[in-house]
Amino acid sequence: MTPVVCIVGTSDSGKTTLICRLIEELSKRGYRVATIKHHHAGFEMDHEGTDTFKHWGAGARQVIISGPQKMALIRAVDPEPTLEDLAALYGGGYDLLLAEGFKNSTSPKIEIWRTGQPDETLLCAGDPHCLALATDFPHDVEVPVLDLNWPDQVADFIETRFLKETRPMGVRLAVDGRPIPLNKFASRILESVVRGAVASLRGCESPKHIVVEIENKT
Amino acid sequence: MTPVVCIVGTSDSGKTTLICRLIEELSKRGYRVATIKHHHAGFEMDHEGTDTFKHWGAGARQVIISGPQKMALIRAVDPEPTLEDLAALYGGGYDLLLAEGFKNSTSPKIEIWRTGQPDETLLCAGDPHCLALATDFPHDVEVPVLDLNWPDQVADFIETRFLKETRPMGVRLAVDGRPIPLNKFASRILESVVRGAVASLRGCESPKHIVVEIENKT
Repeated sequence: MTPVVCIVGTSDSGKTTLICRLIEELSKRGYRVATIKHHHAGFEMDHEGTDTFKHWGAGARQVIISGPQKMALIRAVDPEPTLEDLAALYGGGYDLLLAEGFKNSTSPKIEIWRTGQPDETLLCAGDPHCLALATDFPHDVEVPVLDLNWPDQVADFIETRFLKETRPMGVRLAVDGRPIPLNKFASRILESVVRGAVASLRGCESPKHIVVEIENKT
Repeated sequence: MTPVVCIVGTSDSGKTTLICRLIEELSKRGYRVATIKHHHAGFEMDHEGTDTFKHWGAGARQVIISGPQKMALIRAVDPEPTLEDLAALYGGGYDLLLAEGFKNSTSPKIEIWRTGQPDETLLCAGDPHCLALATDFPHDVEVPVLDLNWPDQVADFIETRFLKETRPMGVRLAVDGRPIPLNKFASRILESVVRGAVASLRGCESPKHIVVEIENKT
């Protein structure tokens, strides 16, 4: 499963700026970074007048546009997926998912606090998923304090913590849209039966990435 | 696997209009329709100045924005996925994928020809995947001719052909990004081993939709 790190903080704390610097730095180090942003209200991604905008307006539940270098997808959701759902569904093929917001999730978080912001209680004081504080002002907190103005240091923290561990393989499972946690045993069983069944197929002798989807239809 | 139907024809033949009418009609009949549009050149889905636009500009390989009613995703691709790749990766959970363009694919197609268009050879004359011609002018062709100005008739054709067959289950497999065709035997084996391994997990007693992903990491 691709590791997820949330960058959290009040609005205007500089979350987007830090995320952009982290993307640049970690990409330079060779990692494939993807991002997930939370939007509390609605948002409009498409442009009025495009064909996909018309498809959506006619009632398509999902529209995709596919070109030579990139593709885009817009999808109606009900209920709203959690960060963990999104990571399970769309996180494959990347080394790191950087999330902006999602402060209530149970994924690991780095909190931002910048001088001049409201002096409210820090999230990292009470949230066990908050791993570090990136700030421009000394704080006496129990988690590591990183220099907000030195994004390379934040990148080092993420790299050491999430990207340098050896992950010889990963098995993830989602049932009816919910990611199912797997212990080592279940994960090994599932991997071995799938690999076994797939290995006998032509052209699948040494797969690096396998996706199986099974759906009941009546 | 969700059925795919391509609507093909020269530019300005009315592909988008027909697709929108089909989405409206088939949604009214209770089907969940998704669309896939092919863009030969580049396209710009996002808006300058948004956070996701900045993430993308900084080098993110995929950006997602997630809100209460919908989510959007933009992803760098290399190589460009085929229609069949897109259907395998993103087609789950829908009853029908209507594709606009993709006239060289091997998915089933309905061709549009409208009076006033260049009188060139019809695709359906030589393409075995072209199942019908939707037109406003009588044509002597070997495939069924549908009335372009009566979208309900085109919807009937699609419903009879693709949506009324019983599909008790579907198994799809992708290895290293390529969808792998499965015969009934391989499909049954894969389904039974995955179902068997999953059924013993807590909360997975009667799954309707299972996704397993296995990835090598070094």
